[in-house]
Amino acid sequence: MTEWLAHRADVLPRHPAAVLGDRTLTYSELDAAATALAHQLIDLGVQPGDRVALLALNSLEFVVAVHAVPRAGAILLPLNARLTVPELAYQLNDAGAKVLLYHERTAAQAADAARVAHVGKLFDISGVLSAQCSVPGAGHSAPATQHSALRSSGPFAIIYTSGTTGAPKGAVLSFENFFASAAASAFNMGVLPGDRWVACLPMFHIGGLSIVTRSAIYGTTVVVHPAFDEHEVNAELRERGATLLSVVPTMLQRMLDADDLGYPASVRGVLVGGGPVTKELLERAADRGLPVLQTYGLTEATSQVTTLAPADALSHLGSAGKPLLGTRIRVDAPPGEPGEILVQGPTVTSGYWNRPEATAKALRDGWLHTGDIGRLDEDGFLYVLDRRDDLIVSGGENVYPAEVEGVIKGFAGVVDVAVVGLPDEQWGQVVAAAIVAGEGFDAAALDAYLRTRLAGYKVPRVLRLVESLPVTASGKVRRNVVRENLRRT
Amino acid sequence: MTEWLAHRADVLPRHPAAVLGDRTLTYSELDAAATALAHQLIDLGVQPGDRVALLALNSLEFVVAVHAVPRAGAILLPLNARLTVPELAYQLNDAGAKVLLYHERTAAQAADAARVAHVGKLFDISGVLSAQCSVPGAGHSAPATQHSALRSSGPFAIIYTSGTTGAPKGAVLSFENFFASAAASAFNMGVLPGDRWVACLPMFHIGGLSIVTRSAIYGTTVVVHPAFDEHEVNAELRERGATLLSVVPTMLQRMLDADDLGYPASVRGVLVGGGPVTKELLERAADRGLPVLQTYGLTEATSQVTTLAPADALSHLGSAGKPLLGTRIRVDAPPGEPGEILVQGPTVTSGYWNRPEATAKALRDGWLHTGDIGRLDEDGFLYVLDRRDDLIVSGGENVYPAEVEGVIKGFAGVVDVAVVGLPDEQWGQVVAAAIVAGEGFDAAALDAYLRTRLAGYKVPRVLRLVESLPVTASGKVRRNVVRENLRRT
Repeated sequence: MTEWLAHRADVLPRHPAAVLGDRTLTYSELDAAATALAHQLIDLGVQPGDRVALLALNSLEFVVAVHAVPRAGAILLPLNARLTVPELAYQLNDAGAKVLLYHERTAAQAADAARVAHVGKLFDISGVLSAQCSVPGAGHSAPATQHSALRSSGPFAIIYTSGTTGAPKGAVLSFENFFASAAASAFNMGVLPGDRWVACLPMFHIGGLSIVTRSAIYGTTVVVHPAFDEHEVNAELRERGATLLSVVPTMLQRMLDADDLGYPASVRGVLVGGGPVTKELLERAADRGLPVLQTYGLTEATSQVTTLAPADALSHLGSAGKPLLGTRIRVDAPPGEPGEILVQGPTVTSGYWNRPEATAKALRDGWLHTGDIGRLDEDGFLYVLDRRDDLIVSGGENVYPAEVEGVIKGFAGVVDVAVVGLPDEQWGQVVAAAIVAGEGFDAAALDAYLRTRLAGYKVPRVLRLVESLPVTASGKVRRNVVRENLRRT
Repeated sequence: MTEWLAHRADVLPRHPAAVLGDRTLTYSELDAAATALAHQLIDLGVQPGDRVALLALNSLEFVVAVHAVPRAGAILLPLNARLTVPELAYQLNDAGAKVLLYHERTAAQAADAARVAHVGKLFDISGVLSAQCSVPGAGHSAPATQHSALRSSGPFAIIYTSGTTGAPKGAVLSFENFFASAAASAFNMGVLPGDRWVACLPMFHIGGLSIVTRSAIYGTTVVVHPAFDEHEVNAELRERGATLLSVVPTMLQRMLDADDLGYPASVRGVLVGGGPVTKELLERAADRGLPVLQTYGLTEATSQVTTLAPADALSHLGSAGKPLLGTRIRVDAPPGEPGEILVQGPTVTSGYWNRPEATAKALRDGWLHTGDIGRLDEDGFLYVLDRRDDLIVSGGENVYPAEVEGVIKGFAGVVDVAVVGLPDEQWGQVVAAAIVAGEGFDAAALDAYLRTRLAGYKVPRVLRLVESLPVTASGKVRRNVVRENLRRT
C-alpha cells in the first residue's frame, strides 16, 4: 500500500490536511512535520515494530504524530487522556511502549505514567509545528518517506478496550483495516474532494482517530476541535464550511438545544454512534436540515460496522442500519430473536496484542464475537439492544462495570459491590454503585480513592449502601434488579 | 469480499442501478435478473472457473450479464462487438469459452463466431429483463446469491488486448483489481450516493466496463448509452442529472461542437482518456463549465493509472497527471527523459490468460511494463509521449500496426507493408498503410479482403503503393519516415 500522507503531499500539496481554528496545515506542511518528527523518533532509538504511545488531546500535533509514528516504523498506541496514572501505566506496560509522546497539557500526567510504567523516553510534541517552520528534517540526508523504517502495511495502531472481564486489551488495527473502513464509509456516505470532517470526538478513540486516517486516505480535511463545544461545532457547520461530523447522541442533543437555527445544505451528514437516537431528536434534526446517520461500531472493527441512512431512520426507529460494503453481520440467535452480534470483514482486527487466548475467544470461527446483544428485523436492519452485557456508555465513553467494581473492592471495608448504568439526560448514562460495606468503611474517603485510580467518567456519580446484593440461584449478581433499585432512589 | 450487487440489493433495493432512456433498473431488479441469468448459465452446464463470453453492445442486459457471470461461478470474457468473425473466434478459442452470450443485434455475428470457434453453447440475453418481470428464479429452490458457485474474489474478467507482437492476449482482472480501481477513483474524483455516471464508451472495453463495476461498488447509477451521440450525452448532463462521464478526446470535441450551451454545476467531472486534450479544447470546456480530468490508463491496470485534476490542467498542459492512491509509476529512464512507463499497485493484472511468457515479460521485477513511452516532469506529472511504440488510437479504439500488417501480408501479391497512424481531426488518428506490391496484386479487392478479417476501425483509410520501405541499418522499418511520407501525400 502506498503511504497515504506521502501520496497526498505529492498530489495535493497545498490542500488543507488539518484545520484548527484559524490555523491550517496543508498536506505539504503535514508531510514535512511528520517527516521531522519521524526522524526525531528514530534518533530516540525507535526501531521498526516498536510501540510509541501518544498521550494528547485533539490538536494539530496529534495529527502529525499519527502520521509520524508509522514513518519511524513504529506502531501507534493512542492513550485516553482521561485515564488515571495507574490506568495509563497498565496500557504502557502491557503494550511495552518504548517512547511516550505528550503535549503541553498532558505533560504532568505523562511524566507520572512514564515513571510508574518505567518508560524511559518521553517526547514533547508541542513544538513539532514550530520546528517545522524552520528547516524540516534539517541535518538529515534523506526524507523519512524514503527511510527504510517507513511502514504502510501491517499493524498501524493498538487501541485498548475492555471486555466483561474488566482487563483492558489492546486491539491491533492495521493499515488495511483503516483503508477498508475508509472505503466502506465513502461508499456509504460519499466523499467529495472538498470535504471537511469535524473531529470533536477524542482522537485517542477509534471514532476520532478514524477521521484522521480517513481524511488522509481521501485527501480531504480534518477539522480539529480540542473538545466538544456545541456552539463551536454549530458555527463550524454553518459558517466555516464543515461537511461531515461524528458525535454521540448527547452531543447532537446539545447542538440542537443550543439555538433554533437551521443547518446549510453543505452539511452532508452527521454520523451518530454510541447508542440510538430518539425519535424526538431525529425529527428535530431533520426539521433543522441535519441528516443523521446512526451507526453501530466498535474499536475491534475500526469504527463503523452498520449505518442507518437518514431515509430509513423513521421507518426503522432505533436501528443502527445495515452493514457497510465488505462487512457481514450475524446475530447468534434464531431469526428475529436477540443474540450476540458477530462481525466479519476487512475492518475486523486480527486480534489483541499479546493475548492469544482473548483473541481466540473473540475471533471464533472467523467471526468477531462483539459481546454486544442485538436483533435483526425481517428487512435485515440491526437493532443494538445492549452493549457488551453490562457496558455503560457515558458521554460517549465506554465504562465496564467489572473494571470499576474491581477498583472499589480494593477499598478498605468494601465487602461487595455492583456497578450499573443509570439513564441520564445529559450523558446518556451515568455510573452508579451499590456497595455492601463492612468494618472500617469510610464513605467520605471513597471518592478521593477512586479518583486516583479511575478516570473521572468511570467514578460512580451515584453511591448507595445496601445490606446485600440480589443474586441468582447460581450466585451471579442480578444487575437489572440492582439498576431498578438504584433508579427508584 | 462481499458480493457487490447482493450488498447493494440489500441496502439500496429501490435505488436505480442502471438507466437506459426512460427505463430504470433498481438494485433489487438487477439483483433478481442477475440471479435468474446465473441459474440459466448453471443449467447450461457452466462450472466454477469456466469462461463465459459476452458479445453485446451497451445495454441494460449487458449490465445484467456482468453481474450474472460471477454468480454462476464463471469468468466474464467481454468481446469487442466491432471485431470480425475470425478475430472473435481467436479470443473465444484462446480463452476456451464454454458459452457465448449475445444480444439481438449481435446474433448473426455471435452465431458465426461460435461456429468457427466451436463454442457449443449460445445464449440470447435479450430477454433477461422481460423474464425477470414474471417470477425471478422461478423453479429454483435457492437464490443464486446463496449458490455455492457464486464468486466474489479472484478472476472477474478476461479482456483481450494486443501488444507490439500483434497477438491479442487476455489480461486477467480480478474482483480485487476492480475494487481497488473503484476506491482509488473515488478518492480522487469523489463519489456521492446520487451519482449517475454515463457509460457511452463501449462496456466491452475497460473504460466502459469499469463504470459498471464501480457503480455497483459505490451503490450509484450507471447511465447506459447504446453508443456515443453528442446530443444525447449533452442532454443527459444538462437535463437528466448525470454527474460523471467518461469519453475520449474526439467525443469531448463533438460535445462542445454540438452547440454553444453551458453545463450545470451538477456535472462533477468528465474523465478523458485515450490521449491528451488540446489547450483549445480544455479552455472551451472550462468556459462552458465542464471540469475535464485527463487520465492515462490501460486494460492491464483496470483503467485509470494517473489522472490530472482540472486545476492543474493548464499549468501542466498535455499531462495525464499523477498516480491514483495505491498506484506507483516509474519511467524507465534518467530523470526528465522519456522512457517506458512502469506501473505497480493493486489495480495491476496478475497476468495474461495462459501466457506465462508474456506475463513474465510484462510483469518484470514487480512492475507492469506498459510498452507506453512517457516522461515525468520535475513535479512528478506524467506526460504520455507514445502509446505502446506504434500504437494507433482511432476514435478511442487501439489499433496495433503489427496485427494489421500481418493480415495485409496474407493478401495475394503483397511483398511488404508498413502500417502507421496519421493525425485526424475527427478520430484523433486514422490507420494508413504503405504497401510494396508484386505480381498479382489487386488493389481493388484488398479492402473487401480486409473487411472480412479486421474490425472496420482497423482497416486502413489511406493506402499507398510504394517502391520500397525505408529501413534502418538493422533492417527494421522506420515508421516515422513512413508516416512523414504518407502525411505529405
